[in-house]
Amino acid sequence: MSITFSLDKSTRTLLYQQLAEQIKSAIVRGELTEGMQLPPVRRLAAELGVSTTTVAQAYDLLATEGVIGGHVGRGTYILSSPLTALARARAPFGGEAQATTSQRLDWAAGWLGGLSPQASRAGQLQWLTQRALERWGDPATILNLSSGYPDVSLFPIERWERSMARAGRLLAEEARQASSLQVLQYGSTLGDEALRSYLCQYFTRFGFQPEPREILLTSGNQQGLDLVARVLLSPGDPVFIEEPAYLAALDIFEQQRAACHPIPVDEEGLRLDLLEQVLEAPAARPRLLCVVPTAHSPTGATMSCERRRRLVELACRYNLLIVEDDYCSELFYSETGCEPPPALRSFDREGRVIYLKSFNKLIFPTLRLGCIVAAAPILARLVEGKQAFARGTSLPLARALLEHLSDPAFEEELCFYRQEYRRRRDALLNLLEEELAGLECRWTVPMAGFNLLLLLPPQLQEYEVVEKAADRGLLLVPGQLFRVENGQPHCPSVRLTFADKSPEQLREGVKRLSSTLRALLHGGGSGQGRASPDLFTAV
Amino acid sequence: MSITFSLDKSTRTLLYQQLAEQIKSAIVRGELTEGMQLPPVRRLAAELGVSTTTVAQAYDLLATEGVIGGHVGRGTYILSSPLTALARARAPFGGEAQATTSQRLDWAAGWLGGLSPQASRAGQLQWLTQRALERWGDPATILNLSSGYPDVSLFPIERWERSMARAGRLLAEEARQASSLQVLQYGSTLGDEALRSYLCQYFTRFGFQPEPREILLTSGNQQGLDLVARVLLSPGDPVFIEEPAYLAALDIFEQQRAACHPIPVDEEGLRLDLLEQVLEAPAARPRLLCVVPTAHSPTGATMSCERRRRLVELACRYNLLIVEDDYCSELFYSETGCEPPPALRSFDREGRVIYLKSFNKLIFPTLRLGCIVAAAPILARLVEGKQAFARGTSLPLARALLEHLSDPAFEEELCFYRQEYRRRRDALLNLLEEELAGLECRWTVPMAGFNLLLLLPPQLQEYEVVEKAADRGLLLVPGQLFRVENGQPHCPSVRLTFADKSPEQLREGVKRLSSTLRALLHGGGSGQGRASPDLFTAV
Repeated sequence: MSITFSLDKSTRTLLYQQLAEQIKSAIVRGELTEGMQLPPVRRLAAELGVSTTTVAQAYDLLATEGVIGGHVGRGTYILSSPLTALARARAPFGGEAQATTSQRLDWAAGWLGGLSPQASRAGQLQWLTQRALERWGDPATILNLSSGYPDVSLFPIERWERSMARAGRLLAEEARQASSLQVLQYGSTLGDEALRSYLCQYFTRFGFQPEPREILLTSGNQQGLDLVARVLLSPGDPVFIEEPAYLAALDIFEQQRAACHPIPVDEEGLRLDLLEQVLEAPAARPRLLCVVPTAHSPTGATMSCERRRRLVELACRYNLLIVEDDYCSELFYSETGCEPPPALRSFDREGRVIYLKSFNKLIFPTLRLGCIVAAAPILARLVEGKQAFARGTSLPLARALLEHLSDPAFEEELCFYRQEYRRRRDALLNLLEEELAGLECRWTVPMAGFNLLLLLPPQLQEYEVVEKAADRGLLLVPGQLFRVENGQPHCPSVRLTFADKSPEQLREGVKRLSSTLRALLHGGGSGQGRASPDLFTAV
Repeated sequence: MSITFSLDKSTRTLLYQQLAEQIKSAIVRGELTEGMQLPPVRRLAAELGVSTTTVAQAYDLLATEGVIGGHVGRGTYILSSPLTALARARAPFGGEAQATTSQRLDWAAGWLGGLSPQASRAGQLQWLTQRALERWGDPATILNLSSGYPDVSLFPIERWERSMARAGRLLAEEARQASSLQVLQYGSTLGDEALRSYLCQYFTRFGFQPEPREILLTSGNQQGLDLVARVLLSPGDPVFIEEPAYLAALDIFEQQRAACHPIPVDEEGLRLDLLEQVLEAPAARPRLLCVVPTAHSPTGATMSCERRRRLVELACRYNLLIVEDDYCSELFYSETGCEPPPALRSFDREGRVIYLKSFNKLIFPTLRLGCIVAAAPILARLVEGKQAFARGTSLPLARALLEHLSDPAFEEELCFYRQEYRRRRDALLNLLEEELAGLECRWTVPMAGFNLLLLLPPQLQEYEVVEKAADRGLLLVPGQLFRVENGQPHCPSVRLTFADKSPEQLREGVKRLSSTLRALLHGGGSGQGRASPDLFTAV
């Protein structure tokens, strides 16, 4: 094995943790691949000039995380894991022959190396979910605090039924009145003019009012972000992103092979002081910054009004383009009323903010409708991309959403969602106070959205917590999935979703969490403490 | 100017045509850019060792095509045209500063070089349409035979109104019966199970019956093709494509920077003899072939049943994966009945055919729904891509389509479409016979779809015909847009759409076409004859 490990005794990070991280990095870089044997503990210890205990602890840690496995006397091997999958995903297409599941498809060996089931972060989350279900065994009683989902059971399906019927009726009437069905024909790639016009008014609630020609309908912010990345970034282009970051955004930028430059977040969102430090450095720097200013995932942080204003100023001063991802600004749990913070776009006088809006988490996830708002010259490029890659967005779907949004009942529903989600957030916060007392845990207090971030006692290992929680029927998502750099040390954390659970379910979930943590801490966790210099991140 | 032109006096292509083609190629390669001055006729003639007439004819031809312009005594310059746009699109992002239309966006200069309004073939078509409208001046009386569109005025909008209402009602009922709205939640990326199950039965009309897990819903074949290209091809990967080819497929492959290997088509579709010649050569060859076996665009050719069977055999023998693009197999104008030819997928025993189905041209273009059918291991990769790039497909839209397709009235509507489109096809064929008699024109006789290809007298120039037709209020699309290689000599042609025109409109259109051609042929066209060795292509 020609991999070089370099352990540094002068840092606060323990040697076995350094070794484990470096082995994981070698897997992600593709230098260690699935099935490869690791050297015996004694030999590696001698090579590295460390104690056998250090190597044994590193191997134990990796085994606990499911990264390696083996039996005494038979050697230790790299297992299939999200890390090996990530490595495969990063390898060039066709670079590696891969067994397929079907005999009929023997000819395809070597073909299907493009993406793999665990290649994307979303895929890793599915893999972890599957694994947890297998450990627990009973899908009915498992408690999933990892979803990031809204609660669709709150949705007024009868009103959607009327919205669809009314949209169909109005489309037919419009065609009869104009004696023409040309509205059904290929037209502007921007999408339905009626919905775009309505949205111009709709966005005044967030402090800006675009023109219809500045709006491009999409199937949601995943398509929107993908379009922005494909049209504005070339492989290798640098991009600023929050650390931790929304995992689907990381998926998009990693697929586009952009170079993500992480900027840490705190309770008020993006750390502008750290951003400005990077911007002031003379080095080549990103021209694009991607940010979720309201209900940031995974932290739940919402950027203050003042910080929003300053971020747009920085963008102007340092010639940055901002991508603002908004998926639920309507769900702001204000103390005083229903006033959401103004969008970054509302501070934008130079056309620097590309505002992405999704209605999928607000209405329901299988709706699949959203839009991009951008200055006309930028939007023109995005429209060309949309035209080439997917054409326009569905007219009947746009009309159904228009009916749904423009009914006065919609605002009442928003109030109801806000109250209900806030009640669940409060329930979770109270439960964390009660059940995790004395456990060295901290958590964020989100003012919007569906999730909060729970910071675990620093001596615990995230993957171990996730696995042991699964043994108690609790499904968690490790903070690692939201990190830009795989394997970089950070405060162990899990994202907790409160929006799609009743207070009773939350109580049961937090109880399982508490007993998991207490068992690990008192019954022999993974050992010594680990430095956690910052709130969310080791800067 | 350091461009080298190499004229070959031994070929059948005239010297001035060679020079014109080489200048166009230099523009596409980016060696000659917008605003550059060409050498004076006399100097270039001396440099090349040809007569001044040759250079002057080449310049005249390029001026007629809108590629260059100028005035006597003031020099000749490269103009903005689809060729310069194509060059810009091929340049790496950010490589060229570009003026923007908004003062506010001065900072964005140099940013927006990604795509450009004329970068895609679809964009070039829009550009030509715009130009024709400007030449004619009256949108109301212009006759557009270039659209490639179905006739939406035939669509039963009242039935769609009922489909939407019923889909909404059934969704609500389903939720009430299951006491759960989980159907609205994020679920399988494949898309709605109910529609996928129905489609399994639906596709038996084309000779195959997939399982629901082999179907991935998309927004149409543009998204389907883009997904296939992104997941299965890396930049530079070779791909077989028909010559001439569907322009949107060329757009996708050119955006993915795949290397397109053209295989000519004839009246029965792809020339398998020529494909096999390439496959037998020992050189590295594509592993992916993209084909439109029914109602190929632009020729309208439908592949015979025997040729379909042989193509799949070739794919097995030479380890090829086939992408089958089906947008209107339902609209087969059989002499004997309504039996469409079996899909390539129906001959596939090894999972080699990825079948793309769009309902957008069959139902209406702003519907935006289609699917991909592929063997499970291949589909799994496409699903990962769809999950990462755009998530699932709209549930309410899927249910509305399901209602619309599963109503018995749908089959009657299909019969009506077939009769009506066939009537229009026959009208166009008769008109071509009558009006173009004695003009050395030939045309294809499509058995399905919306278009045919008209082969022009070989001595005419496509772009000149298109421009002069615009002067008579007739909008045509030049065959050039469907060619894999820009500037490669081919028989001049235009695609004619009959589906969205009444017989009266077709009569007026063909009259304008006839007078355009006659004026060019008798009133001084662009000069000497030009070789046209094959039906559609110069092999």
